[in-house]
Amino acid sequence: MAPAPTDLLPVQPDEIRAAARALDGVVLRTPCLPAPRLSRLTGANVWVKYENLQPVGAFKERGAYMKLSSLTPAERAAGVVAMSAGNHAQAVAYHAAKLGISATIVMPERTPFVKVSATEAHGATVVLAGETLAESAIACAEIVEREGRILIHPYDDARIIAGQGTIGYEMLAEVPELDTLVVPIGGGGLIAGIAIAARDVKPDIAIVGVEAALYPSAYAAVRGEEAHCGGATLAEGIAVKAVGRLTLPVIKALVERIVLVDEPALERAVNAYITLQKTMAEGAGAAGLAAMLTDPAPFKGRNVGLVLCGGNIDPRILATIMMRELARDGRIITIEADFPDEPGVLARLTTAIGTAGGNILEVTHNRLGLTHLARETSVRLTIETRDDRHTEAVVAALQATGLTVRMAEDVDGKF
Amino acid sequence: MAPAPTDLLPVQPDEIRAAARALDGVVLRTPCLPAPRLSRLTGANVWVKYENLQPVGAFKERGAYMKLSSLTPAERAAGVVAMSAGNHAQAVAYHAAKLGISATIVMPERTPFVKVSATEAHGATVVLAGETLAESAIACAEIVEREGRILIHPYDDARIIAGQGTIGYEMLAEVPELDTLVVPIGGGGLIAGIAIAARDVKPDIAIVGVEAALYPSAYAAVRGEEAHCGGATLAEGIAVKAVGRLTLPVIKALVERIVLVDEPALERAVNAYITLQKTMAEGAGAAGLAAMLTDPAPFKGRNVGLVLCGGNIDPRILATIMMRELARDGRIITIEADFPDEPGVLARLTTAIGTAGGNILEVTHNRLGLTHLARETSVRLTIETRDDRHTEAVVAALQATGLTVRMAEDVDGKF
Repeated sequence: MAPAPTDLLPVQPDEIRAAARALDGVVLRTPCLPAPRLSRLTGANVWVKYENLQPVGAFKERGAYMKLSSLTPAERAAGVVAMSAGNHAQAVAYHAAKLGISATIVMPERTPFVKVSATEAHGATVVLAGETLAESAIACAEIVEREGRILIHPYDDARIIAGQGTIGYEMLAEVPELDTLVVPIGGGGLIAGIAIAARDVKPDIAIVGVEAALYPSAYAAVRGEEAHCGGATLAEGIAVKAVGRLTLPVIKALVERIVLVDEPALERAVNAYITLQKTMAEGAGAAGLAAMLTDPAPFKGRNVGLVLCGGNIDPRILATIMMRELARDGRIITIEADFPDEPGVLARLTTAIGTAGGNILEVTHNRLGLTHLARETSVRLTIETRDDRHTEAVVAALQATGLTVRMAEDVDGKF
Repeated sequence: MAPAPTDLLPVQPDEIRAAARALDGVVLRTPCLPAPRLSRLTGANVWVKYENLQPVGAFKERGAYMKLSSLTPAERAAGVVAMSAGNHAQAVAYHAAKLGISATIVMPERTPFVKVSATEAHGATVVLAGETLAESAIACAEIVEREGRILIHPYDDARIIAGQGTIGYEMLAEVPELDTLVVPIGGGGLIAGIAIAARDVKPDIAIVGVEAALYPSAYAAVRGEEAHCGGATLAEGIAVKAVGRLTLPVIKALVERIVLVDEPALERAVNAYITLQKTMAEGAGAAGLAAMLTDPAPFKGRNVGLVLCGGNIDPRILATIMMRELARDGRIITIEADFPDEPGVLARLTTAIGTAGGNILEVTHNRLGLTHLARETSVRLTIETRDDRHTEAVVAALQATGLTVRMAEDVDGKF
């Protein structure tokens, strides 16, 4: 790609360098470290920028602070308002409090109380309004109108873009050999800032964007197409229906390509961060790795920097992802057995499992099923094994009982 | 405490400084970062040293490399042997392969295949021997005898202690204001090295040790008592029955106190690292935080450095811990209802739950229970809510159905 004509950019490199100086000591300069296990997984040389280690668990603090600190005394006195159920809410609340600015955060009515109270704990006023983010946006606009508060937009603002862009300078200062950066795209503030900064330092660096396949708004916009967005994605942090007015021209000018990632790839990437890299990524935070898993060929042998932009994932969803991966790996299996409904038969099965070293997690009986005879019962056993070789040993031990045993449907078939 | 008479130490500060130079570029210089959420949780100013980000997921690489690289050409040619089912095995295998040294790792027979194959993937030969680590140790001694291999001890070796000690210099170089370091104790190699290094830089720094209450070997040894060790601890990485011959004098001389942590504290600490700090700690890795949660008073207001020494926790155990914490937080509840065994009654219950926004995870019927009438059935419903306030709303909605509903036993009562 040709170098971008910088006069078309909404933010100049100098402004991002100035933001880096302003953020020094205010936000964490997060580490950017080699990830050899992810390198083996993907065939590239992978470094990870750990923005999930920021106090609010995501990069959003950078832009929020830059915007808030740029307000005039009159604007500060008027206070601010932001609309978000996610990381932007926390970031605005956190830095507004530190700067002594009154902040109101509008969240959808069904936002989990834990997020509401975390935002309130930073001293912000939370207004619950609307069933969806779109409805909350209307409430937010009314507050701007009525109270004269300054709207802190999550991405379509030059200060926000400049703040997020500081990540690009930090990554290349710490790892100058990076030749590719993979950056998630929601509204585009993060990738726009990083692209301007990184191309300033290294004009031939490749910037690759990532979107959830369910929300391909930037992917469609750069093609002049209309995006079909919707659905429950694990990457709710980048589930944005319209890319920014300021950010789209930057993406068009500086982003080499946009990879769309489906839900299984996001799930696999979240799990890989946990099990291989010992760090927690929310769906959006794992999107870069998901892109490498989806289309590994162009990354092979390259020096790839992944922006792990956030780690705020619901614990139950994370636990479920981990358990599903164990099932996929054959470490949790479900078997079904039909046998005569007589005393002692279940004991034969469970003894065989126990002797083979399997750990029974759950037993359910089905006496009313029509696939077995009336004098028989059907039992479903969920068993934990040490690994897939051990699973084979447990299944062989079950078959040696002489009872009719079959593997229940594969967990992969369930979704 | 008075400065230690350094001539009694098995390793001199200069040897640890030399190790730091030798390790430069060989192991990761892990970040040591402020953890404001853990600070709020504990009332101290907390920094975390992320040794879980090492390629094998734990600090053990430091000592392993120092020991392996110190071998003479003849010793290298003879090869090495180590006995471990954990992080030491991985670390020795990884660096022996890099140094071109033949490595045999002895593991207990029931070691999960995933650990066996991970160790084999580094090029080591794995010998499965013994039901327990003690029996494996006998097999290991036989290999030393028979094959002339050099034993790489996990902690009772000056080179190992010097390698682990480099963590102390790194922490104080990055965060000079630390006044307290909290370090897990297994055999004592980690804390001995760190204590020597840290007291060299800052003679008045407090070194606090942590052991699992089930394995209080160093705690007893410094008192001249016999330790009663045993039981399944989440912190299997520090479940060591005898502290080292070299390490014990260092602990006696330089460690201010040893905190014993019970299993619920370890579980809570693992969960706090995940949910607040977005990073994965194994039980031993979370022991330092568990100590702060167990006895917070002496840490209040201090600048505390936690050594997050390892992140290799079984995904199923981690998932279980997270789900149990949700149950403790009231986000997963189990209720029981008795009602007439008639069509439509279950629908009344589930409609009430759904309307109140509860998510039903599981329904089980019990038609044979003796606590309800013969014409009644008993149903157990596991329900996910957004938070404890929402739980109250769901329970109120259930009570409004007029059916007899009770909360099932609290999950805390189950263990």
